Amino acid sequence: MTKGTNQIKIAIIGASGYTGAELVRLLACHPNADIRALTADRNAGKPLSEVFPHLGGLDLPELIKLDAVDWADIDVVFCCLPHGTTQEFIASLPDSLKIIDLSADFRLSNIKTYAEWYGHDHLAPDLQKDAVYGITELARDAIKKARLVANPGCYPTSALLPLVPLIDAKQIDTGNIIIDAKSGVTGAGRSAKEGTLYAEVTEGIHAYGVAGHRHAPEIEQGLSAAAGSDIIVNFTPHLMPMNRGILSTIYVSLANGASASDLHATLEKKYAKEPFVRILPEGSVPHTRHVRGSNHCLIGVVADRLKGRAVIVSVIDNLVKGASGQAVQNMNLVCGLDETTGLQQEPLFP
Amino acid sequence: MTKGTNQIKIAIIGASGYTGAELVRLLACHPNADIRALTADRNAGKPLSEVFPHLGGLDLPELIKLDAVDWADIDVVFCCLPHGTTQEFIASLPDSLKIIDLSADFRLSNIKTYAEWYGHDHLAPDLQKDAVYGITELARDAIKKARLVANPGCYPTSALLPLVPLIDAKQIDTGNIIIDAKSGVTGAGRSAKEGTLYAEVTEGIHAYGVAGHRHAPEIEQGLSAAAGSDIIVNFTPHLMPMNRGILSTIYVSLANGASASDLHATLEKKYAKEPFVRILPEGSVPHTRHVRGSNHCLIGVVADRLKGRAVIVSVIDNLVKGASGQAVQNMNLVCGLDETTGLQQEPLFP
Amino acid sequence: MTKGTNQIKIAIIGASGYTGAELVRLLACHPNADIRALTADRNAGKPLSEVFPHLGGLDLPELIKLDAVDWADIDVVFCCLPHGTTQEFIASLPDSLKIIDLSADFRLSNIKTYAEWYGHDHLAPDLQKDAVYGITELARDAIKKARLVANPGCYPTSALLPLVPLIDAKQIDTGNIIIDAKSGVTGAGRSAKEGTLYAEVTEGIHAYGVAGHRHAPEIEQGLSAAAGSDIIVNFTPHLMPMNRGILSTIYVSLANGASASDLHATLEKKYAKEPFVRILPEGSVPHTRHVRGSNHCLIGVVADRLKGRAVIVSVIDNLVKGASGQAVQNMNLVCGLDETTGLQQEPLFP
Amino acid sequence: MTKGTNQIKIAIIGASGYTGAELVRLLACHPNADIRALTADRNAGKPLSEVFPHLGGLDLPELIKLDAVDWADIDVVFCCLPHGTTQEFIASLPDSLKIIDLSADFRLSNIKTYAEWYGHDHLAPDLQKDAVYGITELARDAIKKARLVANPGCYPTSALLPLVPLIDAKQIDTGNIIIDAKSGVTGAGRSAKEGTLYAEVTEGIHAYGVAGHRHAPEIEQGLSAAAGSDIIVNFTPHLMPMNRGILSTIYVSLANGASASDLHATLEKKYAKEPFVRILPEGSVPHTRHVRGSNHCLIGVVADRLKGRAVIVSVIDNLVKGASGQAVQNMNLVCGLDETTGLQQEPLFP
Repeated sequence: MTKGTNQIKIAIIGASGYTGAELVRLLACHPNADIRALTADRNAGKPLSEVFPHLGGLDLPELIKLDAVDWADIDVVFCCLPHGTTQEFIASLPDSLKIIDLSADFRLSNIKTYAEWYGHDHLAPDLQKDAVYGITELARDAIKKARLVANPGCYPTSALLPLVPLIDAKQIDTGNIIIDAKSGVTGAGRSAKEGTLYAEVTEGIHAYGVAGHRHAPEIEQGLSAAAGSDIIVNFTPHLMPMNRGILSTIYVSLANGASASDLHATLEKKYAKEPFVRILPEGSVPHTRHVRGSNHCLIGVVADRLKGRAVIVSVIDNLVKGASGQAVQNMNLVCGLDETTGLQQEPLFP
Repeated sequence: MTKGTNQIKIAIIGASGYTGAELVRLLACHPNADIRALTADRNAGKPLSEVFPHLGGLDLPELIKLDAVDWADIDVVFCCLPHGTTQEFIASLPDSLKIIDLSADFRLSNIKTYAEWYGHDHLAPDLQKDAVYGITELARDAIKKARLVANPGCYPTSALLPLVPLIDAKQIDTGNIIIDAKSGVTGAGRSAKEGTLYAEVTEGIHAYGVAGHRHAPEIEQGLSAAAGSDIIVNFTPHLMPMNRGILSTIYVSLANGASASDLHATLEKKYAKEPFVRILPEGSVPHTRHVRGSNHCLIGVVADRLKGRAVIVSVIDNLVKGASGQAVQNMNLVCGLDETTGLQQEPLFP
Repeated sequence: MTKGTNQIKIAIIGASGYTGAELVRLLACHPNADIRALTADRNAGKPLSEVFPHLGGLDLPELIKLDAVDWADIDVVFCCLPHGTTQEFIASLPDSLKIIDLSADFRLSNIKTYAEWYGHDHLAPDLQKDAVYGITELARDAIKKARLVANPGCYPTSALLPLVPLIDAKQIDTGNIIIDAKSGVTGAGRSAKEGTLYAEVTEGIHAYGVAGHRHAPEIEQGLSAAAGSDIIVNFTPHLMPMNRGILSTIYVSLANGASASDLHATLEKKYAKEPFVRILPEGSVPHTRHVRGSNHCLIGVVADRLKGRAVIVSVIDNLVKGASGQAVQNMNLVCGLDETTGLQQEPLFP
Repeated sequence: MTKGTNQIKIAIIGASGYTGAELVRLLACHPNADIRALTADRNAGKPLSEVFPHLGGLDLPELIKLDAVDWADIDVVFCCLPHGTTQEFIASLPDSLKIIDLSADFRLSNIKTYAEWYGHDHLAPDLQKDAVYGITELARDAIKKARLVANPGCYPTSALLPLVPLIDAKQIDTGNIIIDAKSGVTGAGRSAKEGTLYAEVTEGIHAYGVAGHRHAPEIEQGLSAAAGSDIIVNFTPHLMPMNRGILSTIYVSLANGASASDLHATLEKKYAKEPFVRILPEGSVPHTRHVRGSNHCLIGVVADRLKGRAVIVSVIDNLVKGASGQAVQNMNLVCGLDETTGLQQEPLFP
């Protein structure tokens, strides 16, 4: 990769997980990215290619422990640590650093809601006020000025991109939103658990966390902000045999005389100039395969047989637009680069 | 397999498809089943094991053309022909035969609805009146007396088993039922189409037939009969990478002061003595993997976060309880046998 | 399941793994099997259906700790403990018990070879002498009289069934046998490891344990016994995305003027009357899908383009003929039952 | 994508198949590629995004019929037509065009061998003499000067890259080479066939074309040229459930006193400076997942337990290095560009 002259010095904290590896994959083709530090406490001392052999041909720094990073040499930190471990760490970083946090630790602006859903008090409440919740297309201006971007969850990204404009337009009933989501397995991370073993996942599907998944309050936060009132949703995630991808089938009641075509028109207008969000012709629905490996979100709208209702289907790659791709998109904004830099790879199909 | 003395002489019409092969698999372990004729027009003259090598060790008649069947030697006909080709054929059969039809040709009792959804007039309207729609647990007495059983579709089986008792109990709002279904690929049959190629299906998911799938009127017929009034539903099927299985996630509004626990109690009571339907503890949800290869239907009920709503999840194997297994279950009833005969294989997991 | 009068009282030790669950699945349809004890130390106190929900409709004893088994109430023990933990345990059992051991602990008759490959001394060398290595078709008479059957590994079963008769017939060169094997994931068990996560296995393949897999000495023991001299083989296993199945592609040099047709004839003659081994027509090769869920082994023979060589392909379901099915087959022999009892389920395809 | 000033005007003939779509995916990120014509006879008049929705965001010409191409506007033709249809077509093209042919029609330099394996006489024997068989790393200088590049088959690429240098070095016995290959499904193309339906492929594996696959003579041609004498090999391909990827496990006898380490050293030296071929440390073996979506070939060498033998494992993505990626690599050479242009995307894992 020929690199440009405007180099951003980058640290990836927690590089031995799937989102860390995906950042490296994307940044390897980013002309302004200079990866200077990769941390992974248990694997410190190894090359990344020992943990992820598919990244074997790159010229990368060795994995080091978190406390071995020379922060003076870093401009932007991508933080891929597990939920609950990130607040104190980020609070300890020098002010000069820009931070994209891929954990859930700064996503909920209400620290009481955080405590309720994550089971412990927020450990950096002051810093929380500075965090910008970063669905790029919905918060572009704020992200440009942010020091700390709370990179959104995968499910919330797939739900908020279609729903927020419709709530803004007052075209759907806010008391009756049902989000039936189907996710690939990488959303569960790389740590070994019985439930994500091949033999437990292949050739089947099941719902999980029904009425209790931590992405529900994150979705509700975004919708409530758009509506200006508290919204509760049904959010029912399912785990299915695919590595990458989220498909959210969203069932809505129409409001204020709107039709499915009106919803479609609202979304088309909202996203007409967006490089990564594409609205399909009315009546068409997207496949997760159509976005695999890319930063795209595809959205379809179909009129329901039930009068006064519509079905909306959105798809993303959970590791790209749902995590590391959106993180790079946000980094581009934070650093004043063109938003699409390094993100122009087309989807990999089949 | 040791066979009993009370042998039923069986013909399987259309034995070269997946439902035909599944009938052979199940009947091979059925102590009263004597397979006397297997038809497959294009493959006539071959042994079935050439078309389905997994059925290679059995002592079966050769595949023959449809017009070569000696009906005098047959007691029960399983009809696995494509939709639209079955009405005239069945009308031509001797009265002495009992018939289990696995196509959609006799499922809709209203022949106008049939014509509307299948694009041509019903070709055996008189015979339609005699057909019994055969979800075994919901129509047991009628099936026992039937000559012609219209074996239900896979999606309708998974939806009607949980919903009919709840409508009978007037515990759910009939105007607002949403059925988000996820199906394995065998539901599309064995004929070669681009859309069911491995590379087009693996590692992804998509909705199809949104607001237009032919199983919608079949579901609505069953629900409307229970309610005593016309019901329209949202039915949104999805195709996903698994061979066998349907999971229906059903979103309902509670009625008449019922709670999710009340729904659960209704289903538990209804199915307490059923050998093939099992209600999970409240709050638990089933995996399709838990029924693979078996005639079971598992159902879970969970209270929604949205007040006054509940989520119901049901799973079946589309080729067994959703097709050939229920067909054998119905044959057992029609022939006066114990309903579980030949159907006691446990699920295959992993 | 209607049970017969001759009931065998069975204990399954280590019932929370895949081979334990598979034993339960098979024995649930076995007319002479009475499961009296199921052990699983970490899960003691739970019903098996909590660990394996697909086994939810059965009338089974609760999981207990190993030391809570009442051996006086048991006739046959299936031992599904991890390798290395079984020798002392089995040595401690009452003499009255018959034992089928599914671990590797008693498979290698030479305790020096055992120590070399398993990294510790054999802990029950005296008992080793009594163990019969149990590929049913190759050791039927010895198994009938055995107290302790060492149930064979999955790879060795797939390799020895075709190779032993050919070595007996002196039709292949014993210095030049190459076994390229492809296995499903359940062979690695249910314990959570990064390497068997869905995302690490799906949509790919890799070789592992090249020139160092512990099933190599087990294969060599069986071949050497047949040849009357020490044989070393190439054995290269691969892990691929399927739950069940092993396909072994075996490359052999012909000896003593034999042709591929001669090899085929030898195998056809050897297995002509076997209920579970089927030789395909010469030039045909089997799929793993054709044996899924069944106790069958299918074998094909093809002449190579390289003069004087042949290719043999064999398939089994690693959890059935490669583990629990062969274990039941051996129990039937040990207990004087018909060898096929409880094992007549046809393969599940698709 | 920012495009450079040196634009190559490109036509893709047969753009509605997988290799055509893969060319578009790669060329969309190629700074010097200007796609001017896309042909697909049956789909003429549609946008490519209707046939391949994952390529929906690109600015591409509409699909047209073959005879509608304005050849005066084209510099380079990628030909993705089925085997047997390409010879006459390419013979009819203007001399000014450079051609990369992805079919098999010009791969066998001996037209008798072609006729024998493809069942008809070669239809452009004069043109055959000009065709350069294009494994880039093995024929770089000839490709630079070529007008017509016969782009190699996927299996031959995976076999010849490791084997040719070893034959050049006289380190392996040429009479005894066994290539056990495992392929993903896209190698069979997008046309609908029963054998590549999802339900027929998932969760299983089988060998096919044993001793009769058309890639055997292509492999033998490359090896024979290196050896200077006729070589016959065993080549046994297997079809397995993955979209992309070929893994070839190659069994060789060592010659002239060479050890496995010597083989490893030869390959390391040969490929030390290659951007797309990487030799793993001795004893390590690659996964197909490590090259998915990339133009890489990874190769491992392991000493066999059989004395005097070694095992070599190579992996490629069959659609990239095995087809469209190598085609772009060859186009780069033919056009005087840096060979890696447009091919620097990292593998997609998971």
